[in-house]
Amino acid sequence: MSRQLHLNAFLMSTGHHEASWRLPESNPVANTDVAHYQNLARIAERGKFDSVFFADSPVLIGDVGRRPAGSLEPTVLLTAIAAATSRIGLIATASTTYNDPFNLARRFASVDHVSGGRAGWNVVTTAGPDAAKNFNLADQPAHAERYDRAAEFLEVAYALWDSWEDDATVADKEAGVWGDSARVQPIDHVGRHFQVRGPLNLPRSPQGHPLIVQAGSSEDGKGLAARYAEAVFTAQQTLADAQAFYADLKARTAALGRDPETIKILPGIVPVIGGTVEEALRLEQELDELIKPEYARQQLAKTLRVRPEDLPLDRQLPADLPDEDEIEGAKSRYTLIVTLARREKLTVRELIGRLGGGRGHRTFSGTPEQVADAIVEWFEAGAADGFNVMPAVLPSGLEAFADHVVPILRQRGLFRTDYTGTTLREHYGLARPSPERLTTAVGAN
Amino acid sequence: MSRQLHLNAFLMSTGHHEASWRLPESNPVANTDVAHYQNLARIAERGKFDSVFFADSPVLIGDVGRRPAGSLEPTVLLTAIAAATSRIGLIATASTTYNDPFNLARRFASVDHVSGGRAGWNVVTTAGPDAAKNFNLADQPAHAERYDRAAEFLEVAYALWDSWEDDATVADKEAGVWGDSARVQPIDHVGRHFQVRGPLNLPRSPQGHPLIVQAGSSEDGKGLAARYAEAVFTAQQTLADAQAFYADLKARTAALGRDPETIKILPGIVPVIGGTVEEALRLEQELDELIKPEYARQQLAKTLRVRPEDLPLDRQLPADLPDEDEIEGAKSRYTLIVTLARREKLTVRELIGRLGGGRGHRTFSGTPEQVADAIVEWFEAGAADGFNVMPAVLPSGLEAFADHVVPILRQRGLFRTDYTGTTLREHYGLARPSPERLTTAVGAN
Repeated sequence: MSRQLHLNAFLMSTGHHEASWRLPESNPVANTDVAHYQNLARIAERGKFDSVFFADSPVLIGDVGRRPAGSLEPTVLLTAIAAATSRIGLIATASTTYNDPFNLARRFASVDHVSGGRAGWNVVTTAGPDAAKNFNLADQPAHAERYDRAAEFLEVAYALWDSWEDDATVADKEAGVWGDSARVQPIDHVGRHFQVRGPLNLPRSPQGHPLIVQAGSSEDGKGLAARYAEAVFTAQQTLADAQAFYADLKARTAALGRDPETIKILPGIVPVIGGTVEEALRLEQELDELIKPEYARQQLAKTLRVRPEDLPLDRQLPADLPDEDEIEGAKSRYTLIVTLARREKLTVRELIGRLGGGRGHRTFSGTPEQVADAIVEWFEAGAADGFNVMPAVLPSGLEAFADHVVPILRQRGLFRTDYTGTTLREHYGLARPSPERLTTAVGAN
Repeated sequence: MSRQLHLNAFLMSTGHHEASWRLPESNPVANTDVAHYQNLARIAERGKFDSVFFADSPVLIGDVGRRPAGSLEPTVLLTAIAAATSRIGLIATASTTYNDPFNLARRFASVDHVSGGRAGWNVVTTAGPDAAKNFNLADQPAHAERYDRAAEFLEVAYALWDSWEDDATVADKEAGVWGDSARVQPIDHVGRHFQVRGPLNLPRSPQGHPLIVQAGSSEDGKGLAARYAEAVFTAQQTLADAQAFYADLKARTAALGRDPETIKILPGIVPVIGGTVEEALRLEQELDELIKPEYARQQLAKTLRVRPEDLPLDRQLPADLPDEDEIEGAKSRYTLIVTLARREKLTVRELIGRLGGGRGHRTFSGTPEQVADAIVEWFEAGAADGFNVMPAVLPSGLEAFADHVVPILRQRGLFRTDYTGTTLREHYGLARPSPERLTTAVGAN
């Protein structure tokens, strides 16, 4: 069988277009409606997606007036979805800056148990000062410090997941011996950020380790991904940029002694799908007209660290923006936005339209054939192992993708007709880690 | 209608008897089997129990060799159960010592959302030095310090749950206004233990606040319960002790200006049910014979802070045990065990049998009629508002209770024939808190 595409469905309330909630079809309180998300996951499972995914931050993001705000805690949400599905992988975001490794390692292992081996963790360090203020801090730790903590956090999590050997549970009723104590050991971790004795209070989970996902594309982020990530979500606007990112990350991974096949790179794509080109463009236009530019300008100003009045709607971005080095927040997002605006000489109003649709991810309007072509082009040109599909409108955009784009990818022999495994690792073609192997590989840090 | 009993099902792997996993009927790896727990919850819901409940501690407890160890993270487990049930309340234990209020408040609010208002939180401070070592500490904070943190933790949680007014979501598609920013406010909490800006990143949940449960019976524990708890689980061995505890806690609650009806007191009962008295005793004896006394003696020695060799199996407890004041761990559990042994002049072997069955909770073997009588006696004698039912063997002990004891309680007019509400608060006859009322009541601290 030829090399196969991987598809993740990135789900977010009524869709990735910021005005999607205003469409007549949308449920504006979908953000807290578990049945909405269970329905979306069933649609993605019908399309045989590898996984569904939720972004997250432990702080209220954005302007409550402007668009749906607030969301269910993602490990709770994954568990609710696990109960409504049977095969699709379940990936949630959680912060290494604002969690304890013992609690979080246990939570993801628990999701892995209740889902029969379908859990994945998108490891983030949580940019921005606002989240810090919910956790006893006046400001976020520095970018490099957050990534240093993230690496140690992952080492602790691996050690906890491996603190029970797979066969530690003996369950010998006759002899009255439940477990083999020798196969459940403390981890005795003592590091810069954490002291954790262990063992975990949970037997080893079906996947051994939940799948590790990473989604930051800064230098620190790529370093973390090369060392630990098994799937990477990334925002890339052009084929050339995506190819460069892909080659760079695969090379970094190989340089650390890992097989580059064990890291799957999935750029984001925001498809706006219509039966005809005109229908797709009409939907895109309808959505863009629902954006309130004043709200969006305030958000853009915050990201760019300028005042809203420094961003007249019908002019290009000011010339004197800060360098990425000065940004302690979401570095790669910042650079992507500035680069996009400069390369395409967009006015602020045009930039807002582009960002409102996909927040920096590649937007693509067209027929199912055209969307499939766009996907295959990048896949075959060394820019992607698959895609992070971010429908502009939910559920209709996901239904259109699952029912009309996926069959085309299948006809071209690039996507599964059914699941061949039961775990998320199996969907992504990744091995189940054994405790031994990992102790060696990870201990090298 | 006469005053009604409340029943909570305290669920733990194969049952509360420590040797229950060794019975032929038991699934010895039930502790990580979500289908097992979903089945138990369905049985409890069939019996119209108010709620199911899970104990928890963020550390591996007990000897892996001896009995099932490790458990699914309880908010994950509740969510999985929510998907398999529709009415029964869902209570999980979580520690205020080893969690952040922002994350935990959000998690319980999320469970409340996904379950349609069925979430409850058993607030614990987590006794013992072992858990501390999983969280960067060499030892646990002092007992009083843990309770001081717990109180402030709850204040922060209330404020976060109330940081969105119930009608904050406007969802005006036409005007493009999703939420009313004025009704979503920071909490700006600055206290001894926490600085939390808020607001929560989640709209207010169906119950407003998840039900607050408390289960520690030390002086500090009773103080916390009187101020905050809406249901209290307690271990009481005799009617007189239970009456004294009940009167004391109701009086403390009233002294703080709360209606004593708003705190429901549920002593634990470990029923061992048989069709006849002989059958019940036979099951009890079968279970006790499966206990391995050497394991149990080691556990008892740890609780009593002595060496195992200081506890000869066929002698009573040594005279010179520490006072409760010297115990920084689970104070009330310690006193209960020592008092039980001294009052009934039990040998260590006999004490181990009693504790193996119920870990200090009241065990009661008999027919469904006798169990119902025992429950009604305490309920009518001012010792209980209901019971925390802890079946010795699961699922069979819960089935016996739901299908044979509950109908008798119902015949006596003391228990519901069906749910009359949809939320956990409604089952317990407790009002849904409004943000305003709570700001006043809680702000008095």
